Amino acid sequence: MHPYRSHTCAELNKSNVGETVRLSGWVHRVRDHGGVLFIDLRDTFGITQVLCDSDSPVFAEVEKLRSEWCIRIDGTVKARDESLVNPKLPTGEIEVYIRDMEVLGAADELPLIVFGDQEYPEETRLRYRYLDLRREVMQRNMKLRSDVVAAMRRRMWDADFREYQTPIITASSPEGARDFLVPSRLHPGKFYALPQAPQQFKQLIMVSGFDKYFQIAPCFRDEDPRADRSPTDFYQLDMEMSFVEQQDVFDTIQPVLTGIFEDFGGGRKVDQDWPQISYKDAALWYGTDKPDLRNPIKMQVVSEHFKGSGFAIFAKLLEQDGTEIRAIPAPGGGSRKFCDRMNKFAQEQGLPGMGYIFWRDQGEGMEAAGPLAKNIGPERTEAIRQQLGLEVGDAAFFLGGKPKAFEAVAGRARTVIGDELGLTDKDRFAFAWIVDFPIYERDEETGKIDFEHNPFSMPQGGMAALEGDPLEVKGYQYDLACNGYELVSGAIRNHKPEIMFKAFEIAGYGADEVKKRFGGLVNAFQYGAPPHGGCAAGIDRIVMLLAEQENIREVIMFPMNQRAEDLMMQAPSEPMSDQLMELGLRVIPQD
Amino acid sequence: MHPYRSHTCAELNKSNVGETVRLSGWVHRVRDHGGVLFIDLRDTFGITQVLCDSDSPVFAEVEKLRSEWCIRIDGTVKARDESLVNPKLPTGEIEVYIRDMEVLGAADELPLIVFGDQEYPEETRLRYRYLDLRREVMQRNMKLRSDVVAAMRRRMWDADFREYQTPIITASSPEGARDFLVPSRLHPGKFYALPQAPQQFKQLIMVSGFDKYFQIAPCFRDEDPRADRSPTDFYQLDMEMSFVEQQDVFDTIQPVLTGIFEDFGGGRKVDQDWPQISYKDAALWYGTDKPDLRNPIKMQVVSEHFKGSGFAIFAKLLEQDGTEIRAIPAPGGGSRKFCDRMNKFAQEQGLPGMGYIFWRDQGEGMEAAGPLAKNIGPERTEAIRQQLGLEVGDAAFFLGGKPKAFEAVAGRARTVIGDELGLTDKDRFAFAWIVDFPIYERDEETGKIDFEHNPFSMPQGGMAALEGDPLEVKGYQYDLACNGYELVSGAIRNHKPEIMFKAFEIAGYGADEVKKRFGGLVNAFQYGAPPHGGCAAGIDRIVMLLAEQENIREVIMFPMNQRAEDLMMQAPSEPMSDQLMELGLRVIPQD
Repeated sequence: MHPYRSHTCAELNKSNVGETVRLSGWVHRVRDHGGVLFIDLRDTFGITQVLCDSDSPVFAEVEKLRSEWCIRIDGTVKARDESLVNPKLPTGEIEVYIRDMEVLGAADELPLIVFGDQEYPEETRLRYRYLDLRREVMQRNMKLRSDVVAAMRRRMWDADFREYQTPIITASSPEGARDFLVPSRLHPGKFYALPQAPQQFKQLIMVSGFDKYFQIAPCFRDEDPRADRSPTDFYQLDMEMSFVEQQDVFDTIQPVLTGIFEDFGGGRKVDQDWPQISYKDAALWYGTDKPDLRNPIKMQVVSEHFKGSGFAIFAKLLEQDGTEIRAIPAPGGGSRKFCDRMNKFAQEQGLPGMGYIFWRDQGEGMEAAGPLAKNIGPERTEAIRQQLGLEVGDAAFFLGGKPKAFEAVAGRARTVIGDELGLTDKDRFAFAWIVDFPIYERDEETGKIDFEHNPFSMPQGGMAALEGDPLEVKGYQYDLACNGYELVSGAIRNHKPEIMFKAFEIAGYGADEVKKRFGGLVNAFQYGAPPHGGCAAGIDRIVMLLAEQENIREVIMFPMNQRAEDLMMQAPSEPMSDQLMELGLRVIPQD
Repeated sequence: MHPYRSHTCAELNKSNVGETVRLSGWVHRVRDHGGVLFIDLRDTFGITQVLCDSDSPVFAEVEKLRSEWCIRIDGTVKARDESLVNPKLPTGEIEVYIRDMEVLGAADELPLIVFGDQEYPEETRLRYRYLDLRREVMQRNMKLRSDVVAAMRRRMWDADFREYQTPIITASSPEGARDFLVPSRLHPGKFYALPQAPQQFKQLIMVSGFDKYFQIAPCFRDEDPRADRSPTDFYQLDMEMSFVEQQDVFDTIQPVLTGIFEDFGGGRKVDQDWPQISYKDAALWYGTDKPDLRNPIKMQVVSEHFKGSGFAIFAKLLEQDGTEIRAIPAPGGGSRKFCDRMNKFAQEQGLPGMGYIFWRDQGEGMEAAGPLAKNIGPERTEAIRQQLGLEVGDAAFFLGGKPKAFEAVAGRARTVIGDELGLTDKDRFAFAWIVDFPIYERDEETGKIDFEHNPFSMPQGGMAALEGDPLEVKGYQYDLACNGYELVSGAIRNHKPEIMFKAFEIAGYGADEVKKRFGGLVNAFQYGAPPHGGCAAGIDRIVMLLAEQENIREVIMFPMNQRAEDLMMQAPSEPMSDQLMELGLRVIPQD
């Protein structure tokens, strides 16, 4: 017999009754039923109930067992009494009577209980991650993550992509975040950087003539702490293709992601229709470029109804350039209580408030209520109702000003309204491609034109477009939004050196600086670069959505805490002085 | 029609004749046959011949094309004349007559020609890697690597392993090499390290209760330059299992590797029988712990025949403690010329030389020739011949002294003899598990006992064994040798804290230091650690063997040069002063 096990802890059933078996695993719980010891023996596959009484030759040793000791037992499989069968356990029909036992690994007093659902501070969970990971939900999350990543690979292979590994110790690749630096010992005073993304390398792979690349790629960014991201590294499903247009990238990645969400979404509905919404429309309709389309609310411009109306605040606002009034329709929100609560929400978000109208019927037919309705009068109110398609029992909220100033709050209000009114279907994954991102934006303070996103995207209209108003130039650049998260980001790249230099020039970067910062890529483009594009999908976030978790650390095996420390491994730590010497570095004393 | 292609450059054949097609790719070569331009158009899939004459509306533009321009063409598929069919090309039956053409990416004058086999200095190849990678052999190597890694994953999944990613920015994991350090910005003066291997993390995954782990894992070691390894990072197929013995690990990984070599070995024979050879026997028989078993030569101890013999050098040597005489049998090596050449080889390797005997028949029956045979006389000579099983036409070489002093040279001589005599079957992959490694070795100079390998292996015999002579303790530690390379290394781990502390104590490390250096792991072992073990296979080396390449840089997409520089991306480079400031570091000026 194998020295550790003949079966796993999920394997035995009625058909094994009478067999002598060997199991190994952890003592999940011990119960003492008047001289009979019941032990739930757990391995990664499941739990088997084993028992021991004073007739067993190892009773005395079994009595000493405590939770989380790792043991090996030999015993006889017995059928449980009909009344004791546990139909929820695969092994619920049987139990194993212990005849021999070996302690494989004893355990000290536990800082964290594995069974049950007791909550522990994150510091405890991370310091004793190996205990935390034994818990059922963490075992499930980690296996889910592994299975999701495996499925991504299978699907990419099936789509004729090959995975190529790109360097991790490399040059700085400015992507807008801070680099992690790695000092060079062979070249003291010089530093490598960990890649913020394999962006330049995947483009170089295209220039090298490979047609389709993907990689489950670690990306490194020295980020300031934030709850929903890892402060050091994260993983992307990164892909790139040559000789493609935007739609080709969409057609490639959609079935991959749809398949993943169908396979691992726990039966939640996965939308097959992925609308393409322009960045501009997304801002107008949803107040964000990562809209949650499970929420059916779509905002609308209603400026016309307020121009010259009796609601002086809006009427006056509209006399200024670039202002608008937008409405958030709220079907089913037609009560003063709800409207006041939402108004308060807007105030908490830093706006003066949200005007509202709601429609009710107090036995005398439909009536529009709220101060705003009174101010603009019945005709305009009715026109608004008709535009928004609302009925008795519904409400509408109004925000005005320069869209940039209220758009984000409007988007958050839309989310809250959708949630509170039960309009948002939680058992669903709804996707939208956000397209036509502007290439440039103007810095409000300095007035300077800079890249809105990353500088590698092909402007729509090519060189000609760059000769007009830069703020009007859209890029072949896209994001995929899912349930309010940005899951994917990508672009058709600017592969023409002359267009690239021009694009940088508009943002104030001279040719020399472009060559210095992106030299590898720019040089390569001089030697026959193919048109290419791709995207990258955030794996941690996808797994978070599938696992229904709110915190990224629930889906990472050994995460850092929010201060970028590994409490279990004690990182970062003081270097040894000879290490610093070899690297030619000195630490500046901190005051 | 798609804007870039209706077909790839490997797709068209006779059945497409008459069709209007669109192709994109690179101008591989242009030939001008008296006003008719023939272009080999290449993409990653293959090559299609396209042609253009002065009747074509784009003749003038096509005339300007040069090698490695990236173009899109439209044209008509024509059957080639019977006499011009190229059976070696999948598209050899057809050619495409160009009717329209677009330059997608022009190319400057090339520093490196893509077609043909011209050799270039490595510096040129690495600086213009994107051109180098367009060459047929590099395309093949990279695809092979990708396919090998994919096959490893499929096979590990099929064996019920899951892939789990372990941290890359983490704590120092001393494995005998230098760490790459990463300064922390949030904790100035403190450093992370890149993992030399996921050793501790994979053991922690076992302690966390996961049963089977694998990872295609990047490993980072700040190595001094050497031709056959990357100076920064390399990839391992890393795996670990719980509740296993050494043989379980062997039984798991052998089918994975056998499958890989069968699938990608280009038809070379893959041995199914993987002998287990003790470290001691490997040293004796093959002079190395990574023997090439394609070579049938097995060395033997022949001390008895020289004790008190007339060959004074050996006879005297044997009077010293710890000395031996070993023979390298050389079937077919029975000529003075060959024997002298091998003797010279040994001298070049720093030994005084190798004695030899060879057996010939100059018409008067078998005769043993060489000075050594004369010195020891016919009886001893014949006894040696019988022990080694040699015949007329064969030879034997002799080395004496303390084995450590000549073993390595004996091993190299065995290799040269096997090669020169054609005994080594080159079309074959021969594997052997080297087992029973000693846990400790004595430093010849200091006399100090230290770990021979890594300190994580379980000593055979457990605690009891550690109480005897440390130099006699063997570990459950193993390597896999293939064709003279070490492909895999692994161990059953020491999961018992008390045995671990004892093992370290013998090597002179106190409990405090163990806790400091391996704190994460040692702490975890206090909470119910399962017995576990595993191994790691070197991916770069496996691909090198399969691709029949001698240099690791031929199987890495974007390798560093031997000075650990990336010439294409300009790494490492000077940091910006504000980056250093943020990290709290100062560079010490080098003299």
